[in-house]
Amino acid sequence: MRPDNDNELLLISADELGRRVTIIRRAMEAQGLPALLLSSNVSLYYLTGRVLAGWAHVPASGAVRFFVRRPAIYKGDNVVTVRKMEDLAAYVADSELGVEMDALVYSEIARLGRALPNAHLLNGSPVMRDARSTKTDEQIGRMRASGAQHVRQYSKIPGLFEPGMTDLDLQYEIEHSGRVMGNLGQFRVGGTAMEIFAGSVLVGDNADAPSPYDFAMGGAGADPSLPVGASGEEIRRGQAVMVDMGGDFNGYMTDMSRVYSFGHVPELAQRAHQCSIDIHREITTMMKPGAKCSELYDRALEMVRERGLGKYFMGHRYQAGFVGHGVGIEINEAPVLSPRSRDVLRQGNTVALEPKFVIPHVGAVGVENTYALLTSGKLENLTPAPEPITEFLV
Amino acid sequence: MRPDNDNELLLISADELGRRVTIIRRAMEAQGLPALLLSSNVSLYYLTGRVLAGWAHVPASGAVRFFVRRPAIYKGDNVVTVRKMEDLAAYVADSELGVEMDALVYSEIARLGRALPNAHLLNGSPVMRDARSTKTDEQIGRMRASGAQHVRQYSKIPGLFEPGMTDLDLQYEIEHSGRVMGNLGQFRVGGTAMEIFAGSVLVGDNADAPSPYDFAMGGAGADPSLPVGASGEEIRRGQAVMVDMGGDFNGYMTDMSRVYSFGHVPELAQRAHQCSIDIHREITTMMKPGAKCSELYDRALEMVRERGLGKYFMGHRYQAGFVGHGVGIEINEAPVLSPRSRDVLRQGNTVALEPKFVIPHVGAVGVENTYALLTSGKLENLTPAPEPITEFLV
Repeated sequence: MRPDNDNELLLISADELGRRVTIIRRAMEAQGLPALLLSSNVSLYYLTGRVLAGWAHVPASGAVRFFVRRPAIYKGDNVVTVRKMEDLAAYVADSELGVEMDALVYSEIARLGRALPNAHLLNGSPVMRDARSTKTDEQIGRMRASGAQHVRQYSKIPGLFEPGMTDLDLQYEIEHSGRVMGNLGQFRVGGTAMEIFAGSVLVGDNADAPSPYDFAMGGAGADPSLPVGASGEEIRRGQAVMVDMGGDFNGYMTDMSRVYSFGHVPELAQRAHQCSIDIHREITTMMKPGAKCSELYDRALEMVRERGLGKYFMGHRYQAGFVGHGVGIEINEAPVLSPRSRDVLRQGNTVALEPKFVIPHVGAVGVENTYALLTSGKLENLTPAPEPITEFLV
Repeated sequence: MRPDNDNELLLISADELGRRVTIIRRAMEAQGLPALLLSSNVSLYYLTGRVLAGWAHVPASGAVRFFVRRPAIYKGDNVVTVRKMEDLAAYVADSELGVEMDALVYSEIARLGRALPNAHLLNGSPVMRDARSTKTDEQIGRMRASGAQHVRQYSKIPGLFEPGMTDLDLQYEIEHSGRVMGNLGQFRVGGTAMEIFAGSVLVGDNADAPSPYDFAMGGAGADPSLPVGASGEEIRRGQAVMVDMGGDFNGYMTDMSRVYSFGHVPELAQRAHQCSIDIHREITTMMKPGAKCSELYDRALEMVRERGLGKYFMGHRYQAGFVGHGVGIEINEAPVLSPRSRDVLRQGNTVALEPKFVIPHVGAVGVENTYALLTSGKLENLTPAPEPITEFLV
């Protein structure tokens, strides 16, 4: 990162911007889009290394141009300050233009259509979803740094527990220790339907409480206005404590879950947790460029069924239909590891694998790691922390 | 609130739902919309008292119906479980239908259009913005409860400061003490452009650092991926510490800022802070049903100019163009107190008034309170805490 003292727009190098644009253009070509006009915070962060208010124009060839609305302080090649969306008409002349229809509200796209009446607007979100799933070495480096801090945050967890705590009490201490280590807290989720604050700690039967959100596990939450995660129940002996707190230390997230327990958990929970660890060992040998994500899911489910654990897999009363997902600037990126996924693994993918089980009255068990498919062809675990259930020493 | 143990969809009483629907229908009539189909988390929370995945259909008369996608567990009059959006076609037959074009992504509205091909879709967001700005007594009661906890959270702040802390260090402690008191943390902002984590602590010149977001004050933030608020600078003697942390204890937010200092702040900052307090005293006498919000802004600006403080008002290098805003489920609701606002105050409005100043090298000063225009006609301060600058005792 360059120091932010010269009002230079780009916080990534021109070379790095070039690499990301090459990845975008490959997806544009595959999907038949001749140009993109991007304005979501996530896309602008992807292209510049900072969040700003404005637009980035990505043509099929030639320079990417940035139209900055706010703050109107940036300099740089191909940086134009504009006052409002309608000013774009003087610069953007494409007859076909991809815009982020999955990320921007309807009114904003409608206004873009009026501002650029000669452009036929197409959905550019699938291109960006595809492009952002392929991380550059620099992006993986940022995720590696976030993951290292994430692991450090988790290493403090056993020291934070005290008997009598509720799941929320423990979550507050995990949040705080993470913040002190530099966790930005921000938990970016694509779309407008999913919400969460900082992450989730699940204990006992709350792990099986239904939620309207599309996370792997539910939880009733502390309030009906945010029905996910910890619900304020005391952590009791024999229960599993699933910690799935976000790791966003630099704008790129890692996703990681570990299980703790107050006293021993029953043998069934131990067995299910070991199954999750074994699935990680098995699936990571299959995670190579070209692997079909649906087959990774199928193999995980097969291992679960071989051990008679199917009815606990990814929930008990309510089961989620996936076992992994891409992660990066947002928590729900491509690819998706689900039965009907058409995604195929590629170099640069960063995937959170989370085979989890809900054991009635005990809680959720299983491990979640974020893996990167490096350009060297190797698979790297970005969240390398001990995987067995850690018993709180009290 | 009813206990959540019988899978009853509504967590508000049928009477309260009726009151809210009456308010919505008044806005529908004023804007000429015969029916609404709502699905944002905020609107569903407004109508049911809980966040869920689904749709609420509000016709001009007759019963409101709820189509629940997830969790598919709710019972109740006029509650229908559906599997997907396309199932709505069997129930929704309006030829004109307001949908939330300012809250939902383009693709979702487009899919709705295909699912309901006989409905002409109109923008229902302005109706909901108008309706949600008029709180019922019960909603004000929730905000009163949130405000009381918010005040308690702020009462702990002087005890959290230690010399050598950065703005971020102090924010982490304020966040944590708030969470322990039940602050949900979630900081709901309407639209997709504004992001923040938990709130903001501004010290020294960082109070004047530009941000792409539309908050009253900026701040560089801890990372370019979230450029707002505290930036990690040490709090030095003579600086003002503006604390503007969110208060969401029950799904309804209050908005409140107070100023602390490490040692004395210069006389100019003291004078600007007193001006803010005096603006509160003056503007609250004008906050009556029928008052024009633009005139409230004009009067505040007039007081600022009379005291020669215009160049510090709402920022120094970068000035925000408003002095107050509605607040409730989201932080940026109607009405808006700005020069060109057409909003007129009504009974049930809840307004955060935040005349603030940025004093170079010192920081931001000024008070922010959330006021409710009660149905009795009285104005109530929902965030009643001491307003002078509080000097940290170290």
